[in-house]
Amino acid sequence: MTGTIEAKLKDIGLDLPEPAAPVAAYVPAVEANGLLHISGQLPFDPQGELMTGRLGESCDLETGQAAARACATMLIAQMKAALGDLDRVKRVVKLGVFVNSAGDFTDQAKVANGASALMQQVFGEPGRHARSAVGVPVLPLGVAVEIDAIVQVHEA
Amino acid sequence: MTGTIEAKLKDIGLDLPEPAAPVAAYVPAVEANGLLHISGQLPFDPQGELMTGRLGESCDLETGQAAARACATMLIAQMKAALGDLDRVKRVVKLGVFVNSAGDFTDQAKVANGASALMQQVFGEPGRHARSAVGVPVLPLGVAVEIDAIVQVHEA
Amino acid sequence: MTGTIEAKLKDIGLDLPEPAAPVAAYVPAVEANGLLHISGQLPFDPQGELMTGRLGESCDLETGQAAARACATMLIAQMKAALGDLDRVKRVVKLGVFVNSAGDFTDQAKVANGASALMQQVFGEPGRHARSAVGVPVLPLGVAVEIDAIVQVHEA
Repeated sequence: MTGTIEAKLKDIGLDLPEPAAPVAAYVPAVEANGLLHISGQLPFDPQGELMTGRLGESCDLETGQAAARACATMLIAQMKAALGDLDRVKRVVKLGVFVNSAGDFTDQAKVANGASALMQQVFGEPGRHARSAVGVPVLPLGVAVEIDAIVQVHEA
Repeated sequence: MTGTIEAKLKDIGLDLPEPAAPVAAYVPAVEANGLLHISGQLPFDPQGELMTGRLGESCDLETGQAAARACATMLIAQMKAALGDLDRVKRVVKLGVFVNSAGDFTDQAKVANGASALMQQVFGEPGRHARSAVGVPVLPLGVAVEIDAIVQVHEA
Repeated sequence: MTGTIEAKLKDIGLDLPEPAAPVAAYVPAVEANGLLHISGQLPFDPQGELMTGRLGESCDLETGQAAARACATMLIAQMKAALGDLDRVKRVVKLGVFVNSAGDFTDQAKVANGASALMQQVFGEPGRHARSAVGVPVLPLGVAVEIDAIVQVHEA
């Protein structure tokens, strides 16, 4: 079965980026008791630039959704780096979505859908996950969205 | 033993609402390796209306606590929907409480107690949980409180 | 092997404080299925006073890092209280770091490093963890940083 998800990535034309190095003294992901906890990922655009801005101010909904999708893409890149083979993903369990938001922006769920849709597209039914999505006033390096994840994995 | 917690709900007069459908592309709860991760739940009042507002501005402490309790009620409704039987709840492990807060409102813990007290009332000792409670500047659809949860479950 | 981490604490001159009692209706930590979930911890200075303030306004980076380290110290104190012996810590899995931030402060990662560095110093390789770090507009009791944690534990 090895390579099923990789084939899916090819099908949908999704190139995984180099997994981002942590910007600080921690690691991208830790596997413990069958669950992989992945650090909060920041969004990079196709040119490798950070996607910054605040929803409701300097970032529109469509761009926010693209940023969420970029975070999810990086989460998948981290899964591959940590697990070796994306077919070891048994279930995407939970996404924690933090949206850089003006005080009157209340469409965090729509922003987060950019990430959720990609997980389902890539992993199918096992890509359907629990989620929380909240507004925050600011994020590291000024990015628009940050997302962390918990993934259930098959034994190596 | 089936029905112990249901009986407790009757004792305290708590009617579970219909579990809310996700407002987006995800699922309400995922069970993996004996832990149920439940999506962030929004508060609904008895009329089924979203409880909106910001603590320290448009929402007082008592209303905030009622909103936290309403989130907890919905979490329990999601547990029932996911597990079939609430007696499969072995331990409420963790609540993540996000309180829509003005910059000078610092009683997030008191707000969150509205949820914590209900968990203990319904589940007894196994309802006692770890928790984080933080302020956020805004939440989806303008609600006052959002709460997600991790629950340890008995095998089905 | 009992006492290895305690000896390390002595080596680096770190005195654990009394583990803080929850400020509300919950418990400091819950062990379930080999994972210890620890409640969000607030920072106390050596005099036992809460470390308050907002990064980018009333709290500079160095003080914020000290506050993050103080949260991490309290997390370790809670591990000891919950597990009895710190040598039961198998792996620090995840830190969730919430930084009280002005809207233009984007160095949450640098603040969080105050906690991450201590975990690695105390636990060595098993202290290296996944992490998310986000800005929030306000925290309980006005503290500068709040951190929760997930820790993989050896069976008692």
